[in-house]
Amino acid sequence: MKYLLQVDFIMDGPFGEEMSKGFADLANSINEEPGVIWKIWTEDAAAKEAGGIYLFETKEDAEKYLDMHSARLTSFGITNIRGKIFEVNKALSLINNAPIK
Amino acid sequence: MKYLLQVDFIMDGPFGEEMSKGFADLANSINEEPGVIWKIWTEDAAAKEAGGIYLFETKEDAEKYLDMHSARLTSFGITNIRGKIFEVNKALSLINNAPIK
Repeated sequence: MKYLLQVDFIMDGPFGEEMSKGFADLANSINEEPGVIWKIWTEDAAAKEAGGIYLFETKEDAEKYLDMHSARLTSFGITNIRGKIFEVNKALSLINNAPIK
Repeated sequence: MKYLLQVDFIMDGPFGEEMSKGFADLANSINEEPGVIWKIWTEDAAAKEAGGIYLFETKEDAEKYLDMHSARLTSFGITNIRGKIFEVNKALSLINNAPIK
């Protein structure tokens, strides 16, 4: 059973290519976190919002990551952090070609 | 450039296997919607919440889908619908093995 974590927050940037350069090391470190299968990095420069969608092997891994990541974002000065963990409905997701294997 | 739509809302169910059976026809219809690449169906029976994470080909496709889907959910009696559209940061997402191709 897979778990999905969705995180989003308000931030002043960087966005786009600057974001890609500024957070490459962080992205690499995320591959080392327990239970992370993948992350999609999300951004909305106009709304000044960003975040991520993650797939995890277990609910516990997702919960531990959210705690760690929320503390890290707070240390960056980011507030208004919204994090939610959901179970993935496998049967319905597979109908819609979801990347959950 | 790909766009991510995240939707979640409060609902009384069904969850789990009943959800899989009850919404299979809806899931199949979603494959016919313009620009949908995939959908991950999300659920949290304990919190009585559910939703979906979608990848779209264009921002316009995501916006049109969110309008249609919000109206459909409202017709089901669902309130507290939260829908957000983000641009995907491709370079960072590919570092984290994201399924965005």
